[in-house]
Amino acid sequence: MFKECLDSVREKSPLIHNITNYVTVNDVANAILAVGASPIMADEKKEVEEITGICGGLNINIGTLNRRTIASMFKAGKKANSLAHKTLLDPVGAGASALRTQTAIQLLSKVKFDVVRGNISEIKTLATGSGKTQGVDANIEDAVSEGNLEAAVQFAKNFSAQHGCITAITGAIDLVADSTRCFVIRNGRPEMGRITGTGCQLSGIMTAFVCAGSNPLESAAAAVCAMGLAGETAWSRMESGDGNSTYRNRIIDALFNMTGAELEAGAKYEIR
Amino acid sequence: MFKECLDSVREKSPLIHNITNYVTVNDVANAILAVGASPIMADEKKEVEEITGICGGLNINIGTLNRRTIASMFKAGKKANSLAHKTLLDPVGAGASALRTQTAIQLLSKVKFDVVRGNISEIKTLATGSGKTQGVDANIEDAVSEGNLEAAVQFAKNFSAQHGCITAITGAIDLVADSTRCFVIRNGRPEMGRITGTGCQLSGIMTAFVCAGSNPLESAAAAVCAMGLAGETAWSRMESGDGNSTYRNRIIDALFNMTGAELEAGAKYEIR
Amino acid sequence: MFKECLDSVREKSPLIHNITNYVTVNDVANAILAVGASPIMADEKKEVEEITGICGGLNINIGTLNRRTIASMFKAGKKANSLAHKTLLDPVGAGASALRTQTAIQLLSKVKFDVVRGNISEIKTLATGSGKTQGVDANIEDAVSEGNLEAAVQFAKNFSAQHGCITAITGAIDLVADSTRCFVIRNGRPEMGRITGTGCQLSGIMTAFVCAGSNPLESAAAAVCAMGLAGETAWSRMESGDGNSTYRNRIIDALFNMTGAELEAGAKYEIR
Repeated sequence: MFKECLDSVREKSPLIHNITNYVTVNDVANAILAVGASPIMADEKKEVEEITGICGGLNINIGTLNRRTIASMFKAGKKANSLAHKTLLDPVGAGASALRTQTAIQLLSKVKFDVVRGNISEIKTLATGSGKTQGVDANIEDAVSEGNLEAAVQFAKNFSAQHGCITAITGAIDLVADSTRCFVIRNGRPEMGRITGTGCQLSGIMTAFVCAGSNPLESAAAAVCAMGLAGETAWSRMESGDGNSTYRNRIIDALFNMTGAELEAGAKYEIR
Repeated sequence: MFKECLDSVREKSPLIHNITNYVTVNDVANAILAVGASPIMADEKKEVEEITGICGGLNINIGTLNRRTIASMFKAGKKANSLAHKTLLDPVGAGASALRTQTAIQLLSKVKFDVVRGNISEIKTLATGSGKTQGVDANIEDAVSEGNLEAAVQFAKNFSAQHGCITAITGAIDLVADSTRCFVIRNGRPEMGRITGTGCQLSGIMTAFVCAGSNPLESAAAAVCAMGLAGETAWSRMESGDGNSTYRNRIIDALFNMTGAELEAGAKYEIR
Repeated sequence: MFKECLDSVREKSPLIHNITNYVTVNDVANAILAVGASPIMADEKKEVEEITGICGGLNINIGTLNRRTIASMFKAGKKANSLAHKTLLDPVGAGASALRTQTAIQLLSKVKFDVVRGNISEIKTLATGSGKTQGVDANIEDAVSEGNLEAAVQFAKNFSAQHGCITAITGAIDLVADSTRCFVIRNGRPEMGRITGTGCQLSGIMTAFVCAGSNPLESAAAAVCAMGLAGETAWSRMESGDGNSTYRNRIIDALFNMTGAELEAGAKYEIR
């Protein structure tokens, strides 16, 4: 199943329009290229509709949002909807400021998103309309664990049902759910949190997977497994003296070299 | 000939003003440093004239253009012209949106550029006033090949004659032409297309080469050979498990370590 | 002493608000993560007060300042002051344009900074109100050397007294001074100047060190030693064919792996 998801990205090479933050944008572009898709970054209001028009998918990431780019996000999102293009929202830091929380909630109400991907604090903020996100990382008390897993799965399904989207909540355990099924994924390494942008990269490649695949839920789950597996492969290649910067490079390298068969064999998940 | 071009960059260490996109800007800065020149990035209208004034060359790249930075491009370009500084235009994505196409065409009409560097789709868009660029990569049907080489060389010469510039069209085969002579260059690796920003980096170092050199056409061609040769050297250093992120680093590393003699020996070109 | 400074960053993991340039922002984020702190980048006027409010420290870097972000710098700075948060100013390119010089001087007069960190040309520009900075690098005639060291130490102390801050002047020899004591630091490698952003990274981690430590002067000096020592460690790991891009990665890796004890043992300084 996941083999076909990755093979399909490589075969169709979808063009992905990214309105994303300037912190991790280069890694997002290289990660999208690594899985075999093609990135374009454009955030000017005057061109975002046209750019979205020539693409297959739209990835909106509010990591360094500003007045100018917020307007572009809404415009691109509506255009993508009118063309039935695949859309993903990454509500980076929702809960950390009213601007982020409100922008994410308004985007969710004005634009139809195929996927919403964030950490548990961000998604909880969207669900409740307020939050207390610690910067751009999840609060520890919110983290999905074996102890609260069943409740978290139900929360993800409910969020999906409410918004008609796939919900991807990533952390130590990753959840990818629609309203009835939830992939519980245990790929990845804790050290991925010591690199900036692994979440942003995941949102980028997930947009490509959902674009290229026939089943959006499985495609989104495949992207999460691919990113986590890349984190595992990259970690196994770390040498004495290597740190988070080299780990960053090796993760993108691992995406570049991953075959569909390797993804199929390495994916660790159950469906609840 | 090319030896002197690279040696001259290292000796004169020109300061290059870059108004460029936020996707690949860090790699552009490190590539410019790798060849021995010095980068400064500044895109605020209030300061671009002054910044251009203290530099030797101006590199304008429209990769993530917006209303604010477009105004700065015109202002900096005119100032650079008034000081007879070297100028380069990289029309990233011209043809992908009207804003990009029009901005590039207007820049070309209001500012005198010493060099225009892009892929074939972008340069064709500038030549015809419209285009159908597939994102930021060239359309396959446009690509320069052995089969259409003579026509492509003539096209590059004509574009150069029309705009009084050097035209660099990069792809599987690279062309660097003025109105009468065209370097046909066969350095490089196809895998360079799987990294974001090798074109942007080339524009950055090419501005430095043209700044430092005595013959602009030869300097521009030397920069193309240097980038391609770096791609070859970097590829030869790739190890099992390495992918596009490591390849990116090794290309800049190869520029850093390249001697003038190595460039002279490794350059693969003919003049038509 | 320096051991405790680094251990304290790892233990407290302060959240650092960065209003910084888009050239080196990714490396700044990864360097802050490498030392064990947590970065957030936010530059929109509507949210900077809230973001600063949830952080422990504020790092303002004017490397690619523009009208929009300048307003955010003042707003965030005043809010940080009202909360007694730690603040650092990195006046990148002060002296290269009137906008940079004036913005830095006004920031210094309207916002109370705990630390000002720059190269000698930038700090001299702030001291005299004008300058002739060569791009973003220091002028050679200004450079701190064994020959002018005593005068430079006195200059740093005077600047600190005048502005009630710690002054960090980095170059071949680094100075970190308050009004009465100056750390003269001889860690680092000249090759660090061939990478973009080692200064920006230092400002980022220095903000974290000052946030987490009990003695601001010692914490700031510890950050300078850590960055320099990382440069030395990284250089010792360089292999044939490696260049500035790999060096960049290895420096961040070295910060990631550095222990407090290693910093204590490797720091090379005297106090004047």
